[in-house]
Amino acid sequence: MSIQKPKGTQDLLPGVVEKWQYIEEKARDVCRRFNYKEIRTPIFENTELFQRGVGETTDIVEKEMYTFPDKGDRSMTLRPEGTAGVVRAYVENKLYGEPDINKLYYIGPMFRYEQPQAGRYRQFHQFGIEAIGSADPSLDAEVIAMGYLFYKEIGLKGVRVEINSVGNPSCRSVYREELQKFFAPVKDRLCKDCQSRYERNPMRILDCKKDQEYGVGAPSILDFLDEECQTHFSKVQRHLTDMGIEFVINPRMVRGLDYYTHTAFEYKAAGIGAIDTISGGGRYNGLVGTIGGSQIDQPGVGFGLGLERVLLVLEAQGVDVPGVQPLDAYLIGLGEAAGDEIAKLLFELRSAGLTAEKDYTSRKMKAQMKSADRYEARFVAILGDDELAKGTIMLKEMATGEQAEVPIASLADTLKQKLS
Amino acid sequence: MSIQKPKGTQDLLPGVVEKWQYIEEKARDVCRRFNYKEIRTPIFENTELFQRGVGETTDIVEKEMYTFPDKGDRSMTLRPEGTAGVVRAYVENKLYGEPDINKLYYIGPMFRYEQPQAGRYRQFHQFGIEAIGSADPSLDAEVIAMGYLFYKEIGLKGVRVEINSVGNPSCRSVYREELQKFFAPVKDRLCKDCQSRYERNPMRILDCKKDQEYGVGAPSILDFLDEECQTHFSKVQRHLTDMGIEFVINPRMVRGLDYYTHTAFEYKAAGIGAIDTISGGGRYNGLVGTIGGSQIDQPGVGFGLGLERVLLVLEAQGVDVPGVQPLDAYLIGLGEAAGDEIAKLLFELRSAGLTAEKDYTSRKMKAQMKSADRYEARFVAILGDDELAKGTIMLKEMATGEQAEVPIASLADTLKQKLS
Repeated sequence: MSIQKPKGTQDLLPGVVEKWQYIEEKARDVCRRFNYKEIRTPIFENTELFQRGVGETTDIVEKEMYTFPDKGDRSMTLRPEGTAGVVRAYVENKLYGEPDINKLYYIGPMFRYEQPQAGRYRQFHQFGIEAIGSADPSLDAEVIAMGYLFYKEIGLKGVRVEINSVGNPSCRSVYREELQKFFAPVKDRLCKDCQSRYERNPMRILDCKKDQEYGVGAPSILDFLDEECQTHFSKVQRHLTDMGIEFVINPRMVRGLDYYTHTAFEYKAAGIGAIDTISGGGRYNGLVGTIGGSQIDQPGVGFGLGLERVLLVLEAQGVDVPGVQPLDAYLIGLGEAAGDEIAKLLFELRSAGLTAEKDYTSRKMKAQMKSADRYEARFVAILGDDELAKGTIMLKEMATGEQAEVPIASLADTLKQKLS
Repeated sequence: MSIQKPKGTQDLLPGVVEKWQYIEEKARDVCRRFNYKEIRTPIFENTELFQRGVGETTDIVEKEMYTFPDKGDRSMTLRPEGTAGVVRAYVENKLYGEPDINKLYYIGPMFRYEQPQAGRYRQFHQFGIEAIGSADPSLDAEVIAMGYLFYKEIGLKGVRVEINSVGNPSCRSVYREELQKFFAPVKDRLCKDCQSRYERNPMRILDCKKDQEYGVGAPSILDFLDEECQTHFSKVQRHLTDMGIEFVINPRMVRGLDYYTHTAFEYKAAGIGAIDTISGGGRYNGLVGTIGGSQIDQPGVGFGLGLERVLLVLEAQGVDVPGVQPLDAYLIGLGEAAGDEIAKLLFELRSAGLTAEKDYTSRKMKAQMKSADRYEARFVAILGDDELAKGTIMLKEMATGEQAEVPIASLADTLKQKLS
């Protein structure tokens, strides 16, 4: 039997890969406009980074990581998410010493050993941004606005923004105690995950799908925010309103990661069923210090979004994403001498910037014309012995059927003119 | 101590990453013109794929792979090169059933556990192409021409092409015997690697740096080519000449991989010292069958080139690669109300397609002007309370020093006009 791709991974083939290219170009273009610069960190990192940066008690670190010893017997892990590596690079390369804050983005593969299902893969791909070095609420709003604009520009319909404040460590610790008190009487009836969350992070009980009934009437984090947190949160709202971005405050939204402070946010999309959250992010003012040491603690805010999910939602919404890119010209040579001339001419057209193709398997003219159709060629140029002797070639515009004999030497120029 | 990146890996940071983006865009643009489509295969594959597709006795498979069991105890390996995965995907997805031949390219990370040194990393990056489905010599020439054009267009100087034919399995087996006879008397004096090559692949003794002296007077593969191989090789040369690509025939060039047939080629660059080979490739008419089974054997030809090497050579040659992309506008707000207005205006400019930035750390105006300089902003727009009251903003063109007060509402349009 021939060898298969590993379970839970994908081959992105021509015809589909163009959709990925399109989404990624849009992401890069939004980043350019918002002045985010790309950063590329290694595909694998020292395992300790994720234990420290994602959290030892998270599902990711406990169950889902691809961890292996390298030949020097150091424990390495394929990155399960993007933020930890970016923050590690920020610290290691002393980016905090630069005069401006760092606005960074990444696009690339991540790895989690999960049960594969629709839209969920063991190798998946994320686009994320991290703005590190400022606690200014206008930066939270910018990050939220940027994700929103990205989704809007790729054509996603009915994107909604939900925001919350999860406070700072001091007001959150008061709130956690109150929550524990609230859930204490029903603790034994909570699902197994939530019973463990009760001790570790009771806020996460609030967004458990199974235990919704027990959360009714629970105290709201918003009633526990101190003045600093309140001011920050209202400033974020003010900026979003100024930018014309509608949002809903959802005091039960806590996001999965323990390191968030102040702003947490999610994007939701219309017409994709009950699980309508498509991605999210938040502010993480303690994370840089956790990874790099408290002496270089710097505030940060960011989002991370899965590209598989984006493509699935676009498809579910029936949004058309650009696919095949048409050929400028398909060249056909009849006979060996003309075939040689075509190979030469093809290189001229390509050197001149045109997208051009020919046959490589000695097919008959009719099969070659079909090939030109499949490639959506805008022009077909046919060279026979007669034309070769005259130094001309027959040029046909496929949309109109219009034909003309043009000098071989000026084919590139003629095509460029007609295509412009 | 804070956590470091794994040994032999790199962080590609803003300021450097732009050079990578530039090179990759050029690669993609050349692929577009030559009608090669991107394919993305997983970062890791079943280990067996590389044992079969790269060769069990190669250094890569014997010593250099990142191999690990996944949680299902299947042996996985981070891809050490690009061809095997592409060919696996070609077979698994039945691309051979498509009416046209497959012209594919890939760009991405590869992994080999080697001793890190200048330009050599454990995670490195390759751009490669694979044209599968035709034995036509015009395709060999196209592949060679495409790599040549890529190097030329990114500004590499003095690129030379060397070609050879390594024949087909039948004429090569005759030649191998002759070579073994030739080396038999000096076999014990060859380096350790070559003593093992003597049995496995004596052709590789010819391009050993240590054993050059023993190769003098060795028989040439070109004297052993059968008629089919001779015809193929002269056709490749004919096409290269037609395309105006100079080349040298080097009968000692064999390339490292055992699966090559017919054409082998290398690119060399000027002014980078004795080891002047920058990359190479060849035809591999047996590889698809080796990976997918003989019933779907298809001929192929391709190249793979290291992007680290490209950047190193460009630097050694003093070729300038585009770096920082300038900002269109940097906005400065004086005071809180103006600051809020600036945050709003910034989103308008960015939504309109402009690259724009502001301060996020409440710095003084002078520090913000310095920031604008670092970002190479073409315009700076300054908003104070007076202007805010009037609904105007002061716009300064940095190159000329020219200033003008423009309505806030038309700032985006004014900038777009001035920048076009």
